[in-house]
This record gives sequence, structure tokens and C-alpha cells, in this order.
Amino acid sequence: MTFFEGFLSTPEALDATSDRSFVAAMLRFEAALVRAQARAGLISEEAAQSIVGTCKVELFDVARIVRDSGRAGSAAIPLVKALKETVGLFNPAAVADTHRGSTSQDVIDTAAALVTRPVLDLVVADTRRILDALLDLAGRHADDPVLARTLGQPGSVTSFGWKCAQWAAPLARGLLRLRAAAAPALAVQLGGAVGTQAQLGGKGPEIVALMAADLGLAAPDAPWHTQRDVWVALGCEIGILVGSLGKIATDLALMGQYEVRELAEPSEPGRGGSSAMPHKRNPVGAMVALAAAKRAPQRVAGLLAAMPQEHERALGAWQAELAEWPQLLLSAHGAARALASAVPGLQVDTARMRANLDTLRAELPAAAADEWFDPALARHAGDLARAQVARLRAALAGLQAPGGA
Amino acid sequence: MTFFEGFLSTPEALDATSDRSFVAAMLRFEAALVRAQARAGLISEEAAQSIVGTCKVELFDVARIVRDSGRAGSAAIPLVKALKETVGLFNPAAVADTHRGSTSQDVIDTAAALVTRPVLDLVVADTRRILDALLDLAGRHADDPVLARTLGQPGSVTSFGWKCAQWAAPLARGLLRLRAAAAPALAVQLGGAVGTQAQLGGKGPEIVALMAADLGLAAPDAPWHTQRDVWVALGCEIGILVGSLGKIATDLALMGQYEVRELAEPSEPGRGGSSAMPHKRNPVGAMVALAAAKRAPQRVAGLLAAMPQEHERALGAWQAELAEWPQLLLSAHGAARALASAVPGLQVDTARMRANLDTLRAELPAAAADEWFDPALARHAGDLARAQVARLRAALAGLQAPGGA
Amino acid sequence: MTFFEGFLSTPEALDATSDRSFVAAMLRFEAALVRAQARAGLISEEAAQSIVGTCKVELFDVARIVRDSGRAGSAAIPLVKALKETVGLFNPAAVADTHRGSTSQDVIDTAAALVTRPVLDLVVADTRRILDALLDLAGRHADDPVLARTLGQPGSVTSFGWKCAQWAAPLARGLLRLRAAAAPALAVQLGGAVGTQAQLGGKGPEIVALMAADLGLAAPDAPWHTQRDVWVALGCEIGILVGSLGKIATDLALMGQYEVRELAEPSEPGRGGSSAMPHKRNPVGAMVALAAAKRAPQRVAGLLAAMPQEHERALGAWQAELAEWPQLLLSAHGAARALASAVPGLQVDTARMRANLDTLRAELPAAAADEWFDPALARHAGDLARAQVARLRAALAGLQAPGGA
Amino acid sequence: MTFFEGFLSTPEALDATSDRSFVAAMLRFEAALVRAQARAGLISEEAAQSIVGTCKVELFDVARIVRDSGRAGSAAIPLVKALKETVGLFNPAAVADTHRGSTSQDVIDTAAALVTRPVLDLVVADTRRILDALLDLAGRHADDPVLARTLGQPGSVTSFGWKCAQWAAPLARGLLRLRAAAAPALAVQLGGAVGTQAQLGGKGPEIVALMAADLGLAAPDAPWHTQRDVWVALGCEIGILVGSLGKIATDLALMGQYEVRELAEPSEPGRGGSSAMPHKRNPVGAMVALAAAKRAPQRVAGLLAAMPQEHERALGAWQAELAEWPQLLLSAHGAARALASAVPGLQVDTARMRANLDTLRAELPAAAADEWFDPALARHAGDLARAQVARLRAALAGLQAPGGA
Repeated sequence: MTFFEGFLSTPEALDATSDRSFVAAMLRFEAALVRAQARAGLISEEAAQSIVGTCKVELFDVARIVRDSGRAGSAAIPLVKALKETVGLFNPAAVADTHRGSTSQDVIDTAAALVTRPVLDLVVADTRRILDALLDLAGRHADDPVLARTLGQPGSVTSFGWKCAQWAAPLARGLLRLRAAAAPALAVQLGGAVGTQAQLGGKGPEIVALMAADLGLAAPDAPWHTQRDVWVALGCEIGILVGSLGKIATDLALMGQYEVRELAEPSEPGRGGSSAMPHKRNPVGAMVALAAAKRAPQRVAGLLAAMPQEHERALGAWQAELAEWPQLLLSAHGAARALASAVPGLQVDTARMRANLDTLRAELPAAAADEWFDPALARHAGDLARAQVARLRAALAGLQAPGGA
Repeated sequence: MTFFEGFLSTPEALDATSDRSFVAAMLRFEAALVRAQARAGLISEEAAQSIVGTCKVELFDVARIVRDSGRAGSAAIPLVKALKETVGLFNPAAVADTHRGSTSQDVIDTAAALVTRPVLDLVVADTRRILDALLDLAGRHADDPVLARTLGQPGSVTSFGWKCAQWAAPLARGLLRLRAAAAPALAVQLGGAVGTQAQLGGKGPEIVALMAADLGLAAPDAPWHTQRDVWVALGCEIGILVGSLGKIATDLALMGQYEVRELAEPSEPGRGGSSAMPHKRNPVGAMVALAAAKRAPQRVAGLLAAMPQEHERALGAWQAELAEWPQLLLSAHGAARALASAVPGLQVDTARMRANLDTLRAELPAAAADEWFDPALARHAGDLARAQVARLRAALAGLQAPGGA
Repeated sequence: MTFFEGFLSTPEALDATSDRSFVAAMLRFEAALVRAQARAGLISEEAAQSIVGTCKVELFDVARIVRDSGRAGSAAIPLVKALKETVGLFNPAAVADTHRGSTSQDVIDTAAALVTRPVLDLVVADTRRILDALLDLAGRHADDPVLARTLGQPGSVTSFGWKCAQWAAPLARGLLRLRAAAAPALAVQLGGAVGTQAQLGGKGPEIVALMAADLGLAAPDAPWHTQRDVWVALGCEIGILVGSLGKIATDLALMGQYEVRELAEPSEPGRGGSSAMPHKRNPVGAMVALAAAKRAPQRVAGLLAAMPQEHERALGAWQAELAEWPQLLLSAHGAARALASAVPGLQVDTARMRANLDTLRAELPAAAADEWFDPALARHAGDLARAQVARLRAALAGLQAPGGA
Repeated sequence: MTFFEGFLSTPEALDATSDRSFVAAMLRFEAALVRAQARAGLISEEAAQSIVGTCKVELFDVARIVRDSGRAGSAAIPLVKALKETVGLFNPAAVADTHRGSTSQDVIDTAAALVTRPVLDLVVADTRRILDALLDLAGRHADDPVLARTLGQPGSVTSFGWKCAQWAAPLARGLLRLRAAAAPALAVQLGGAVGTQAQLGGKGPEIVALMAADLGLAAPDAPWHTQRDVWVALGCEIGILVGSLGKIATDLALMGQYEVRELAEPSEPGRGGSSAMPHKRNPVGAMVALAAAKRAPQRVAGLLAAMPQEHERALGAWQAELAEWPQLLLSAHGAARALASAVPGLQVDTARMRANLDTLRAELPAAAADEWFDPALARHAGDLARAQVARLRAALAGLQAPGGA
């Protein structure tokens, strides 16, 4: 039954956040740690090389590490135990230098950052695809009139291009804010037992800097075991992006209703069928994004609720945050991919848009029809659309993925 | 990284909600459907037997069904397709009778109920274990004085037995309410394409009743495709139970602090160690329950937020609910099992309780010490404790698991 | 800006939960307490009468009590202080008998129950109005065909009466569950300083029983200072009812769209206008219910998140619960009243329902049109509708308001 | 009962978000609108002056506007109606120029920004007070040893100064992020009926710029009626700040427990008393901040859940967002003020910190005591503390309130 989580996500995001990926990321931490310690002169190069050579996920029984983590009350304890055993097989002298000066939360938080980065790259890439398609549509349909609807009722006339440009703007802003939030949040964690780096011989900051360069992560000012604001701020941005995708999905679903039929998601075999009604085609892109938009707010609330973490390591709150986090990532990529599969090939029926408008005009007194529902009103929206497309294209020039080089 | 979900749950709950378990449950629905249709005279006995014979999870490629469900926008479509293909291999004439009169949501909602039942049984069994242990402790320590603490400060004297009896009461009430909520919620779903049972030849209610008897589920008054109140009410009860477990875990954690040391979770090898500090013993039972208590409120909010489902089948909200549901189950059993492993062997230090009280008494003016912190005040609590234990034992007599016969 | 809370609620609910109403309820607690203590022989009749005579809200400066409560960290402290001062003016000897054996949380929790009851009565009365209107509509339109819509697309045919009967069922169940949840939740709180009733001379249960009879509340088995399950279970039921109202509002809004126009909320002067477009009529009933359905899940999450309350009185969690609670009540009555003003006078356009169906039929291949969109399919739904109306009318017979006599 | 909201907030925040303040802010919008339109040549200077002269809150019946807003389904409709009536009394010719080209949401969203700014200033000022106090404490106690606690158990030694510096860092980052989020979020809203600025004769952007300069708000790129990301991003930052305050409050409460007694909130008459136990002193600062930290996550979830707003104006979601918003502000200032009253006068007992450490050392084997609990370990933390204080002081230099000049 847990497959409904996957159903609303993507194979890539599931793979990037898999148990194996996480164990591999924990091993990357352990390798980077000893490399940095060797460069800082805390351990020998030889010991570091032995340990690094062992930090290969193929050498470990991932399922067993996962299984034992529950009993140990920590995902890192069985990994470190297995790593030390394996190091011991090749170089018993290096066992004492393994995971030295570090604590479970160091490994786990850093691994979480490492695992998050590629998912964010996926989210960004798919959001960018939606955004590019929206900007194209905004330009192409800048002056095409469509009913503007407020509180569910026709309000006046806008243009479909302006709708697209308005859908696009929060995505563009969202990508920029996401990049800004990710930069400090995808960071090394290294505080040692109680966040004082006491076991690193005064070289804590140096080792953090070396590890950050090695792993392509940020070097934070200080350990952040129970200071989660930067991390949660990234989670909030992911949640906001899902909300912006949900807004688009809402409108796609409404405009795709049979009685409105101004838009339709692209069709392809095996996509959006019904088990009972073979003739039906369901807006599955919107569906997945809408499901994400229902769920992501609760995940963000979970992250925020877990912020008051006790003392130097929390009892329960940190663990709750760890469990909420990947589900937010999975939802986010599910939503982005779903709309990336729906927006670029969107079927836009401008004739129907015009027909819906004309039907209303015909029923209204002429004065009201002309004041509020004159198709020519679309040109105001068209001007706004063109200006916004230019502005957004300029803002997006040079945007990189948040974890990008 | 998704293994943090499992880390906070149990192997049994993970197994009961696994993809394989869910596909098996969907097949149980399909088998029960045709058995009922045969008894109602809608299809032949022979066709039913062919289909029933095929409804074996071993015959299906679970991973592929899961994989294809994302693309199809429904978990049931690939299952039904594979089922029809397999039926066709043995009895082509029975293909048309497969899944007839039913829709994806019928299969999925019923399977969700089938999969939920054993997890509730697990939750109930472990909660019962906690409850029995608490009632024993309540009796044994009915008159043992301990500081009562309000707003984090010593308020007066209570007894440890009364604390235990008060921890117990919400669990006992919770089990009773959970049973009441589960009875109608674990129900057959059978509405056909749009919830009118139109393809069942007027025999909808009869077939639902037969299927309910066959599957051990309730026969609801009507299809509940977009009427989720009964189902969500069960989710709320699960959330409340987690909250009650969280209250106990909060107190265990506080009373187990080094400076308080009135309680300790039982110790055993491999349980609650630290990767950096081998001497440490962490309260991992409380930790798991506290993590659940941080997360379950958001799951319940997710279920409630998904209630306004459009028309005859929702776009996004139902799918969101499906994805939130198992995680609530997993958390709930994680919490119940965690405390079931901590409470029965709880190490109770009544001497330390008394010492903490005496330390305070020594520092207070004698009048205040005698008015508010006289150990003899514990007897008031003792009387309440004994009465409550008797009342709860009576209320619990005969309590069955919610899915019980 | 806080008036948006009121905007989405009702004057009656705002009045019932006003500061004045709450202070009055606290005074009812104090009066009931001393009456019960006098009957139990703990204080003199004369002292009780003096105190009871002073427990009149007109005698107190409500604004000042509210203002001082922030500084005191408790809403009860300034009230009790003012009460004792006022008692002292008339009968100094009775001051010591005022609020005796009781603590702030006793007053506040009991007052919360007293204040909640009339709001629930309002919610129930308006929900009942919606329900009665829906049952009428269900009977009247049992066989009127309307498009059934799944995932936002036409799925087949149902009847409008069946839609109404399906909207009605969760309301009927909700009222029954609400009554069941309210009965134990609207309870006296009386535990004294630390929940042991130590200052009540062994007569705690007797006094609770007397107060319960006096105040028309339930007498709980035990103080529930930090055992909030029964109270939160009531909150969950309120949240579920809002969700069920939100489902109806969702469908009303969708069916009321200009392009669908199968339904419209009743119109009246000053209702649902637009400041910019005088011709517009907005579905304000649905709007308020939809807003409630967005908010109530978060309020329920707030209640659940506040359940793990420390020891004998929580630091923060209880206070958070107190602040979340009235907003849930306000939303709930807002939603119920909004739909009670929309559903009874609902404008139902069965001709348009038929026209929407016919438009689709004309576009489909004849075979599909006849298999899935034959208007005659509505009779299946009609049969279900009639049966359900009868069942619900039977279930509702004799239903009283949850706080009813 | 709604006074529990105020109880957890402050008089200043309540006043800033009062109905009167909001109506006054709506009038500031209307005045700025006509001033800008006059400068842009859309209306006469004389008309503008008439209208501006009428935009005084004293001239309006705030209670009536609030009351009528519920019935109208919009807070702006009765205000605009009353404004036009009042303008008409003085200058009938100016009535037609009142609120021209604008819609309800323009007034309300802009007023919400205007009302938010001073509350953010309050939040920032009080957070700054906490921060300054923490930096002082961090410097003063940089090397004072205190038990570091992980998962509720002693883990090793840290310094109290380092704890303070770690509490401070999220506040400093939070203020910087809050300022960055507030700059674009506190923005003019001006889209007209359907967000196309069609009634502004092509001068929409110019008028927005003029109004922004007039009101001291940002001029957004485009109307944001249903693009709420920038606004919600501000809400998220407020939620994160509350979480960071909640972390501090959690630790204060834990360290202030009677058995730990390393810290105490400052005492003063009338602060933190108990109605039942006069000798008690409750940590009311921590209490208020903890209550906020329980509630704010749900408010943020409410904002995020309301993001998918339909078409050009939402039905329900926008209204829900409006109602959630002020409560987040109220909680945030409540939490900031509560800790600003607790942290600067915090009573720090370094002797007790040392005694708690020594007690543990005495019970451990000497080797463990020396490896993990040597008081000299505090110097590692001290070095980190000093560096962090310097870094934070540098980062804070020149920080202004988000709405500051």
C-alpha cells in the first residue's frame, strides 16, 4: 500500500532517495571525513586510503543496515559498525580512525543533503521545462481572449497568454528562491558527539571546509544538529513550489472540464485511462500535482513542528524530520514531472475559449457585455503578458540547478 | 532515505502494507466480487471459479504492476489488465466476467481496508500490552509518592501509580473508540463506474453484503467513493491514539533525564546505543513514540484536507489520501510497539522519586513543604489510582481487536 | 485584520465564544463548585450563597481580566483574584472558600466545555437544516439524470437526487458521531492543583457529580488535565463535519460554474455581490464552507499536536490547544450556517443537467453514448436515492443536539 | 474564549491587526490610489483631494463595516460603499472616481501588507532584543562548562556560552531571511477586476509604482491575486522564526526544571504565579513561545494549502489565507515578546551547571568521566562560541527592521 507514495512520485526521485542511495551517501561522508582528516594531519594518509577504499556501497548489506537501524535507534550505528568491520578485514590499524570525531547525526544529516541535491536537480529541471513551455504559450497566446473567472464565475476578459505568464512567474521566482535556499542548506554536518567538534583537535572548521569542497556541499558556520532553520527554509521553498504547481494544476483541471474544454492534457497510449470506461481520458498530470499540493503543506508543517529540538540532539523531533523530508522531495518531483508531461504538449483550444466568451456575451445585456466581456479587453492582458515574458526570460538567463556546479 | 519511515515503524506493519500485500488484497477483492456475482446469479459458477483460481499474488509481477500504475494514473488498471490476461490464458470466456461492474476505486478502497485491518490488530495488540503493564504498575505503585509537576515545576505530590493509571485511561478509551470507528470503516467499496452500482443489475446491495461476509468487512449503506467521513474518522482515532502514546513518551523521557532519573527504559544489547559514546543508553522507545506524535497530526490533517472530493471521484484528493493513510498506520504501530518494548520492563526507582521530593522539601519553608509536598498527600492519588484500575479492567474485559471476529 | 476570522464565522458563534461569554462560564464553574462543596458539607451554605451571589459577569471588568491574563500566564488567575476581592466586599469570611480545591485549569477547561456546548448546538441546528433540505431534494430529484463526473470528466450518468442523498449521508452520520463524541467531552474538569483532588477531602468524585448535574455536563471518570483524548476526539468530529460540508461546497461551486450552470445559490440583496462588477453573483455560501474546509484540518492538527502534554500540566501545549479550539468552533459554524443559507433555496436546473448530458451524447459514438450516457441509467441512482433517504430519515428520527437535554 | 489568542500575543500586535487598523489601512489604499491616479492624469486633482480627505478612519463605523462584510462575502464591499457615500456627501462628482480600476482584493491584499509591516517591526525588535542578550550571554559564559545532552541524556560537556551562541545563530539568520522575504512581499496589490489592470488605461504599472512609493511598499512586477508565493514565502519565514524561538524555549524549560535548575526566567510580581500554589513561579516566557511553536506550523500549512487558488480569484482559499495570516503574526510577536521578557534577565546558575556535571562524573568510571565529561572540554565550545559571536555581530551590523525606512 506504500506504493501510493511512489505512484505520486517518479522512478528517478525514488531511486535518488532509496535506501541504497542513502547508504552510499553515508559512505561518501565517511570517505570525505577521513580524506579531510588526513589532509589536516589528524590521521595518516594510509589509514585514510584504507577507509576510503572500503567506502563502497557494493561491499555492504544495505537491507541489513536498514533492518538493524530500527533496533539501534539510529541509522548510522549499524553502518559504522559494518564499516569498521570491513575496514578491519583489510587494515585493522585503520579501524580506530574510522568515523573518528564524528557522530551519527553528522553522517545522517550530511547524507541527507547529498541525497537531496539530485532530487532538487530533478525538480528544477522539470520545473524549468514547464516554465519554458509556459513562456512559449504566453507569447503565442498573448492576445487570445479567454474568460477571466473570479470566485468561480466569469468576471471579465483576460488573455490566455497572460494566464500562462502568471502561471510562469511563481515558478521562475520559485526556482530563484529555491537556489538561494539550497545553497546554504545543502551543507556538511560535522559537530562530533555534542556539536563542539571537541574530537577534532581544534581543526573542526578546517575539516568542514575540506569536506565541503570534496562533497560539493556548503561549509556551514557551525554545526546545526539542533539549529534546523536553514534546512527547514529549504523545505519551505519546496513546499511553496509545490503550491505554485498546484495552482497551475487547479486551473488546468478546471479549464479541462468537459463543459469548459478550453484545454486538454496531451494524450498518449496508457496514460490516463479508466478501468471501467475505456473512452475516458483523465487529466493525470493535474491529478498528481493536485495530490502533491494537498500533501506538501502537511510535510512542511511536520518540518516546522520538529524545529524545537532539545539541547544538543533531539529525542523524536529530529527523527520525525528525517522521515518527513524525503516524502516532501518525492511529492515535489512527482508534481513537477507530472506537469512537465502535461504543459509542453498542452492542447489549447482558443476557438472554444472564444465560444465560451461569446455564449456569455449573448446572454448579457449589451452594456454589460461590452463593458466587461468585450474580447478586445484581452489586449490589456496581452501587453502585460509580453512584458512579463521578457522580464522572466531575463531573470531566468543563467539560472542553474541549485546543486549545480 | 525513505528508510527513516521504516526506522520509525515495524517490520510487521511494513510487511502488512507492502506492495505485495496490497496487490494480494486487490486480488482478494476481485475473487470475492466474482464469487458474490456467481451466488447472485450474475455470472456463471464456472467463470467465477476460473477467476478465483487466478487471483493468487504469486501469479503476478508485483513490481511491474506498481511501475505501470504511475503511468496509468491508477493502481488498479495494470492489476486488472494483468488479471484479465491471466484469466484469458486459462479460460478466455471468463475474461468478460472479470472485474465486471466494478471500478478502480472499488478495488483500491476495499484493498486499503483489507490491508488496514491487520495493522490495526498489531496496534491494538501492542497498545494492550502497554495498557496491561500500566495497570500493573498503577496497582503496584498506587501509594508511592512522586513529585507532581505543572508547567515544568514541582506543583505538589502525586503517586506514581496514579500517573500510570492516568497514562492508561486514554489508551483504554482509545482502544474502545478505535474498535467503534473501525467497525464501519473497514468496509467493502463497490459502486461501479460512478457509484450507482448500475452495472450490477439491481443486485448491488446483495453483492456488497455477500462480499462483506466473504472478506470479513462491513457492508456499508452505500458506496463511499467521495464520502470519506467514516474512513477519516478511523484515521482520526489512530491519530488520537498516537497522541496518547506521545503523552506517555513525553513523561517517560522527562522522568528518565539524568537529573531526574525516576524511570529508565529496559536495557538490552544493541538497543539505544550511541555511535560516539559507547557508555550511553538512549530512551529509544520514547524516541520512536515522540517522533510518531510529531508526524501523526500532519497525516490526520492530510486526510481531513482531502475530504472535499469532487463529484463522483476526486482529482488528486483521493490519491493524496491513499498516500497519507499507510504512513499513519506505520507511525501508529511504530509508536505502539516502541512503548510496548519500553513500558513492561520499565525500571521504576521509587527511592529516587522520594529523594527528589525530599530535596525539594528541605529547601522550602516548613509550612509550604507540609502543605504541598507532604509525601502523605500521595494517598489521595492512591485512592484514585485503585478505583481507576478497577474501572479500566472492567471496561477492557472482553475487548477484541477491531478487525476481530 | 482579525475580522477575517469573524467574516468566515457567524455573529452567534462569535458571541458564544466571546471574552464575556468565557468569563461568564468561568463564574458558572465557581458557583457550581461552591454549591457542590456546600452540599457535600465541605463549606457552609452561607459561604456558598455569598460566592454564588457574586458570580455574575456584570460585576466584573471583563476587559481587565483578559488584559491581566497575559501577564499572569493564566486566564483564571485574574478572574479568581477579582472574584475573591468581590466576595470579600460582601462576606470576608467566604473568601477562603472561594475556588477552594480547584486550580486554574479546572476553571478554564470546564468553562471551555460550557462555551462549546451552545456553539455545537448552533452547528447541529444548521447542519440539520442542510440535511433536511438535501433529503427533500434527494426525494424530489431522485430520478433526474445528471452527468456523473470522475477525475473532472464525465464518467456516466447518475441522478441529482442520488448526489443529494450522498451529500446528506455524511452529515447525518456526522451528527450522530458528533453527539456521541460530545457527550463525554463536554465534561467537568476538577482535579485541583495536580489532578489528585487532594484538597477535596476524599469527596472529589461526589463534587464532580454534583457539579456535572448542576452545569449539565458529563462527570468524567477522572480529571483530564493532561489526558486530552476525549476532548480532541470531539475536535476531530467537528473537523470531519467541516470536511463533509466542504465536499458539498466543492460540488456546488463546480456545478454552479457558468459553463455548467446546473445549480445556483439563492440570491438576495447584498449577498455575493462584487465591488468591481455589479452584475456578478458570487457563491458565497460555498466560499465560506470551502474556506473552513481549508482551515479546519490545520486546527485539528493543532489539537493533536498539543496532545503530548507534560506531567500534570503542560507548558505551552495546553495553552496552544485552548487557542486553537474556538477557531475550530467558529469555522465549523461558519461553514454550517453558510450552507444552511445556500442549500435550502438552491436553484436546481434539471433542464440544464439534461442539456449537458445531451451535448456529450451528441459528440460520442452511439455505442458509447448508449452504454455510459443513457439518461435511463439515472434510475439505478434513483433507487439508491430513495432507499437512502428512507434510511437516513429513520436514523435521524429523535436526534437531539449534542448538548441537548 | 477567543481571548486565548490574545493571551498568547501582545497588546501591540493585537492593536496593529485590529479591525480598526485594517479599515484604516484599506482607507490608506484608497487614498493612495486616487493620488496616484491624479498624478497619472486619470482623474482630477480635485476629485483626488476630496476622496483623500474622506479616507479617515474616524469617519467610518468600523463595527458596521465588519458586520456587513460577512453578508457581502467581502470585507471591501461595505467599506467601498461607505466610502462612496461619504465622498458623495462632500463632493458628489468624485464618487465615480472612488476605488476606480480597483477590486476588493486590491484593497484587502494591500491593506494586509500595510498592517503586517508594523507587526514585523515588532517581531524584529523583540527578536533583536533576545539576540543581543544571547550574544552577551555567549560572550560572558563562553568557557563555562555545562552538560551537553543528546536524546535527553548527558552526552558530554559543552559550554553555556556555546549554547547561547547556537540559540542566537538561527535568530540572526532568521532576521536576515525575514528582511529578504518581507521586501518583495509587503507589496501593493492592484490588478483591477480580473488582474489585467484593464481599467487603468495602460497606466497600471505607473500607478502601482506611485502607490508603492506613497505607501512605502514594494511595487510588484504584476498583480498577484492568485500568485501567492511571495506572500506565503514571508509567512514561511515567520513560521521558521517561531520554530527557532521554540527551540530556545524548549531548552529554557528543560534547564529550568527543578531537578536541573541551571536557568530561571526573571521573576517579577504578577508574573508566572499559580492560582492554587502561591509559592510557584512558572516559566511563562517559555510557555508562550512553546505554544506559538505548536501553532505556527499549522498556520503555515494553512497558507500553503491555500496556494492553489482558482483562475483570477479563488473561492475560499484566498479567504482562508486571509484568516490564517493575522494569527501567525499574533503568535510570532507573542513568542518574540515572551522570550524578550525572559532572556535578557535570565538567571544563570553556573555553579549548578558545574554541580550537575560533577554529580555525573562521580558516578562514572574514571576513564569515561575523563574522556567525555572533563570540564576542560568546555574550552572547545568556548572557542566556537567566541568565533560565532564575532561572526553574528558582524552579520547583524546595520540590520534594519524589514519594513524600516
